[in-house]
Order: sequence, then C-alpha cells, then structure tokens
Amino acid sequence: MRLTQWTDYTLRVLMYCAASQNRDQPVTITEIAVNHGISRSHLTKIVQELAAKGWLETTRGRGGGMRLLKSTDAILLGDVVRATETDFAMVECFDPAQNQCRMSPHCRLKGILSQATQRYLDVLDGVSLADLVPTSGTGLPTLPAGVDSIMKNGMHSGLES
Amino acid sequence: MRLTQWTDYTLRVLMYCAASQNRDQPVTITEIAVNHGISRSHLTKIVQELAAKGWLETTRGRGGGMRLLKSTDAILLGDVVRATETDFAMVECFDPAQNQCRMSPHCRLKGILSQATQRYLDVLDGVSLADLVPTSGTGLPTLPAGVDSIMKNGMHSGLES
Repeated sequence: MRLTQWTDYTLRVLMYCAASQNRDQPVTITEIAVNHGISRSHLTKIVQELAAKGWLETTRGRGGGMRLLKSTDAILLGDVVRATETDFAMVECFDPAQNQCRMSPHCRLKGILSQATQRYLDVLDGVSLADLVPTSGTGLPTLPAGVDSIMKNGMHSGLES
Repeated sequence: MRLTQWTDYTLRVLMYCAASQNRDQPVTITEIAVNHGISRSHLTKIVQELAAKGWLETTRGRGGGMRLLKSTDAILLGDVVRATETDFAMVECFDPAQNQCRMSPHCRLKGILSQATQRYLDVLDGVSLADLVPTSGTGLPTLPAGVDSIMKNGMHSGLES
C-alpha cells in the first residue's frame, strides 16, 4: 500500500514552492528537477495540472517560473492526495465493473476498508502545506555543487522547453 | 492507493474458510478458484503461505483441503494486511536506500504519512475474521451452475496438483 509517484512528486513541487515563497525569483522546473533528480517532462505535466487546479500560477520565459496561488494554510494535504490518487479501490469489489467476488452481498470488508481509508485521509485533512514546510527559508533544499551556476546561466529557466 | 491483489486474494481465502467452518468437508482450492475466478496456482501459493503462518491447516489428496487453524476471533484484519502488504513506503523517503529527496532533514511529510497509515491499520486491528463473515453458513458464496458436479466428481479436489 503506497501512494503513487505522481502524488509523491506533486507534494514535492508544492512543498518546494512553499519553502521558496519568500524569495524574489519564482521557482523553476529545472531547479526542482535538479534538486530532486526528477525528469523535467514529468515535472512539467505536474506543474500544468497544479496550475489548472488553481494552486500554482506560472509565467513563461526567462525570469519566469511558478508561485503558489493559494496560501500555504489553505492547501490541505488531504485535498492534494484526493486530487492526485485516482484509485482508492482498496480491493476488487470497490469497482463494480471489475468485481467478480461472489461474497459481496454479505461481506463487510468493503465497508471496513472504506472506513480505514477515511481515517487515513482524516489525518491528512488536518495538515496544511504550512504545517509541512518551514516558511522562514530554512526549509529550502540545498543545491548540489555546480547547480547554482546552471541556474544563474539559465540553461533551463522558467517553464520554457 | 490500494492494497495488493495478493492481500485481496488472501482475505478471500480466509473469509471463504471462515464462512465454511461449520461444514464437514474442508475447503478446496478448486472450490475457491471456481467461485472467485482466481487461478489455482495463485491460490496454491497463498494457501501455502497461510499454512506456513499457522493460520490454515492443509491435508492432501481426495477429501483433503484446508481449514482455519485459529479461531475467527483471533485472526485480525490488521495482522493479515501487515503480513501480506510488504510495502508501506508511502513515498520515496520511507526507503533510505531509494531516497533522493533533499527535503528529508526538515520535512514533516514522512511523519504525517506514517501517522495516517497507523490510523488506517488501527481500524483493521479492531476487526476480526469473525466480524467480517457470518458463521451461520449464510455467508457461503453461491456456486455457479455446474460447479457442484465438478466438486462431487473431484476433478481437482483438495490440494493435489
């Protein structure tokens, strides 16, 4: 039982933006890609989805990048995970189209697993992005050696491809 | 976020045995395979693992099969899921060998996700096999047409291959 890589990376993008919100320059995809060792194309899709949901604003070109559109207090971990995890079908009978289990009519398993999943999400609903990342700037990841110069030279700045 | 198919099928085997415990004949792999449309080889591996854990006893040959070794009250859903789900690494940083996330030292995400997972398992720890399946016999799945004769003719009875 684990969250998808999509959820994992979405959380990292949001947390990176939250930890960077007091600086002047917007966050770039390249910056997150280099910091986390995640492909730019993968991150670009995630950022596009977060922009479509109204959680990020993005600006193109040199000096462009992304910023949080909502307050870090207003982005709840439960909402993020619900938006990114498309499959909470714990076992086969959660999906009527796929279900072949003949125990379904008198089985309590589905109800129990639904209740357990709700308890899981209850914890995440009590936590915002502000709770996860210090906003003083101390939460910013340390750039690996050599990455500073890549950023300054703008090899892949902003959201351009 | 979903449980593995292995967990799903393990629960079905245990629940089938629980629902059948008042009958004379032990449960056969063929019976579960036909009822649930699961391959016999897959079920054989699951039954072997459940026998190794001391939850099932198995007898070979004609008239053989499997029975629960423990009381249905003593088999907790949480213990089953912990035994079958080998991966509770919610995100990358749960596995130090795989972790490349540079936010780890000051990030609270791992702790929050661990807490949420614990709440999930807390619900399952409060439920036993006896709670899931009626033991009066009404919980027995209905055999599809024609399967009764297959059982009686012993085409694949017990645990023999």
